[in-house]
Amino acid sequence: MHVAVLGGTGAIGEGLTLRFGAATDHEITVGSRERDRADSAAARYERELGSHGHTRTIHGASNVNAATGADVVVLAVPPYHVRSTLDTVAEGLLDGATVVSPAVGMERTDDGFEYDPPGTGSLTALVNQTAPDRVDVVGAYHTLPAARLADLDASLGMDVPVVADGVTGKERIWELTEAVDGLRPLDAGPIANAGVVEALTPLLLTLAQHNEGFHDIGARFS
Amino acid sequence: MHVAVLGGTGAIGEGLTLRFGAATDHEITVGSRERDRADSAAARYERELGSHGHTRTIHGASNVNAATGADVVVLAVPPYHVRSTLDTVAEGLLDGATVVSPAVGMERTDDGFEYDPPGTGSLTALVNQTAPDRVDVVGAYHTLPAARLADLDASLGMDVPVVADGVTGKERIWELTEAVDGLRPLDAGPIANAGVVEALTPLLLTLAQHNEGFHDIGARFS
Repeated sequence: MHVAVLGGTGAIGEGLTLRFGAATDHEITVGSRERDRADSAAARYERELGSHGHTRTIHGASNVNAATGADVVVLAVPPYHVRSTLDTVAEGLLDGATVVSPAVGMERTDDGFEYDPPGTGSLTALVNQTAPDRVDVVGAYHTLPAARLADLDASLGMDVPVVADGVTGKERIWELTEAVDGLRPLDAGPIANAGVVEALTPLLLTLAQHNEGFHDIGARFS
Repeated sequence: MHVAVLGGTGAIGEGLTLRFGAATDHEITVGSRERDRADSAAARYERELGSHGHTRTIHGASNVNAATGADVVVLAVPPYHVRSTLDTVAEGLLDGATVVSPAVGMERTDDGFEYDPPGTGSLTALVNQTAPDRVDVVGAYHTLPAARLADLDASLGMDVPVVADGVTGKERIWELTEAVDGLRPLDAGPIANAGVVEALTPLLLTLAQHNEGFHDIGARFS
């Protein structure tokens, strides 16, 4: 499987790339708007993986080139860049590609964080509306703490609620997620449910803000 | 401390009464719109507690009589009864009483549950707006699974995000919650943050619906 992490130079992109790199043999390409930045991030991730005993190649590419021909395309870009990034890469997406939306619209208030979804009800739904019909959209990884993910020595022990309308995309993300030690995918149903999944992220950030030692938390359901 | 659980004959009221009854020596009164139903529920809870080695008295009363003079008043009523229940009992509330709002507005959809807050942004905020100024409103217990709470043999191991503007109310609910084995209160900041806390409940119900063995789940943050 070929996995492209667009916006892969950002915090969550770094975390996902390192974890997927450490846990799987899938081909991974880090995408960025600037090819140079993607290359240097890819080299950095290779070194980091190497220093943890994972000798492997991480490719760097422009977002468009990274997405073109990939089986799984993760839109690890800020919420306000989701739509434009998707528009930019749409043409090169494979038939049946899995497009993953981890972004969450939030507003920082005086006292915490509020969920601030687009008019479609969720960013995942926005991606689903914007993406070509031939791809399979999946919402996942909204709630993962980026810095902890990027620290390969840190244990995770957290759940990943997944929303999807199609079967293939869901299966791929399930497999990719289960491969990472300490991540457990959970079925949150179809994309229509993405709002309640995305809304967990501002709660996590609010709890992190108000409780000592809760920096970089995840959620576990049982 | 005198704790009144209004709507105490319902599922979450039963669960909270049994857990508070088992874990503390606080005086507990179960309130209901009908005195007779409150009395028979109280007797039933006494027997249940007794059968688990907790010999104690649980009082039954009308919601008004239960709330009058209580230090902590839990509005364990359905979302659409929160405002009317509060209006009914307001006059008898002690100066400095703690009024706890655990209700969540939700809509059941074809595929899961959506958060459906009132115009105030959250039910906790609605309670805060409606309650007399002399009381201290706290949002808590929104995400606890009622049946598991009511089963005194079931282990919990779940977190209770708490929102409050005042200090005394928050301290009381902290103490009451920490007393229950397996419940951990977490600070979610002021009532302005209640929306992201309440929105966790439809996510829990959605996950319970779509994942085998996830009936009656709670959330744990770390």
